[in-house]
Amino acid sequence: MKPILTAFESSPDRGKGLARDMPVRWALEEVGQPYDVRLVSFREMKEPAHRARHPFGQIPTYEEGDLALFESGAIVLHIAERHPGLLPNDANARARAITWMFAALTTVQQPIVEREAALYLEGDKPWTKERLPILEDRIRVRLGELSARLGEREWLDGDFSAGDLLMVLVLRRLESSGFLNDYPNLSAYVARAKARPAYGRAFAAQLAVFTNAQS
Amino acid sequence: MKPILTAFESSPDRGKGLARDMPVRWALEEVGQPYDVRLVSFREMKEPAHRARHPFGQIPTYEEGDLALFESGAIVLHIAERHPGLLPNDANARARAITWMFAALTTVQQPIVEREAALYLEGDKPWTKERLPILEDRIRVRLGELSARLGEREWLDGDFSAGDLLMVLVLRRLESSGFLNDYPNLSAYVARAKARPAYGRAFAAQLAVFTNAQS
Repeated sequence: MKPILTAFESSPDRGKGLARDMPVRWALEEVGQPYDVRLVSFREMKEPAHRARHPFGQIPTYEEGDLALFESGAIVLHIAERHPGLLPNDANARARAITWMFAALTTVQQPIVEREAALYLEGDKPWTKERLPILEDRIRVRLGELSARLGEREWLDGDFSAGDLLMVLVLRRLESSGFLNDYPNLSAYVARAKARPAYGRAFAAQLAVFTNAQS
Repeated sequence: MKPILTAFESSPDRGKGLARDMPVRWALEEVGQPYDVRLVSFREMKEPAHRARHPFGQIPTYEEGDLALFESGAIVLHIAERHPGLLPNDANARARAITWMFAALTTVQQPIVEREAALYLEGDKPWTKERLPILEDRIRVRLGELSARLGEREWLDGDFSAGDLLMVLVLRRLESSGFLNDYPNLSAYVARAKARPAYGRAFAAQLAVFTNAQS
């Protein structure tokens, strides 16, 4: 039985692959697990049936038989623990890969999402123009630290892992702003990840949803 | 061999248990695992020796033989996977508990840390007074959703888990602001967790570090 994800009926990012179904789709493609998708509207996301699956009324959710999960990071970890390909076999290397999953979604992502909130939720406020450089400096601190750690490595710690998958998608949130241009090794890291066939399949699948919704 | 944590030599929260060594101490106390602590100054945290353990120059780090980890969420999960007491045995219940770990550190924590950034990093800015209600509304949305899901349950999903441990510490970041008073079931949930003997031992241990640093 294929697992079922939920995704936006019409993604607010217009198919750029920044919605949170993308990490789950990518993880499933990396491990070769077929899946079904149930699309939900913004209205449906806030209704009791969806809230029962996701207490915060968001996407994605993940259903697999009796199991229902939410939170993209947790779903990616669940997939990575049950299929080979996204976590090393060695116990210590595995714990380090999981560390990068948390680092991506907390330490690195926090200031990036704060900047998005400034642009999208407070974009019309008089203070936003003056605040943005403060937020951007905080993002650059994290990018500099991440760039220093990555160095000339291909991936953050050994082979490609669920930690890289989540980190790349967090960094992709900055692509349209040009931030990554100042960190050539981070740009190359993101490009390497996007060149993976599994990424390509996941990206195409989420884009097709948006494209179909427009036609 | 006991694992070694790093913690602030002098915590900026003055021993309130909000620094990120607290979740790791609490997890170790819950599973009955003794540990050693190495204290680091703000200067040491940014030096190469500490950066080798923690690329973002923060606390905590966790060393156990050859293994070195950072990110409190990842360390708590590592402890929970290796010792009984913080994750259910049933595979589905275990995946759901891990979902709450990610929910605590991302969905619930994100707006709470944004408010802290507004107070501590932009407290002197002319816009902060007007921004705070916006941030507080975003926090209240999450608290309302969490309160609705918790309902009359003792813990988020079955027995106390690493998901509750992280969620309670995220909610504790709001204690001094009085937010939780509007959500009696969340206040009671936090109080129940704080009454656990393991919490008490962990809290006392981190407070002793701060108290000793003052004398």
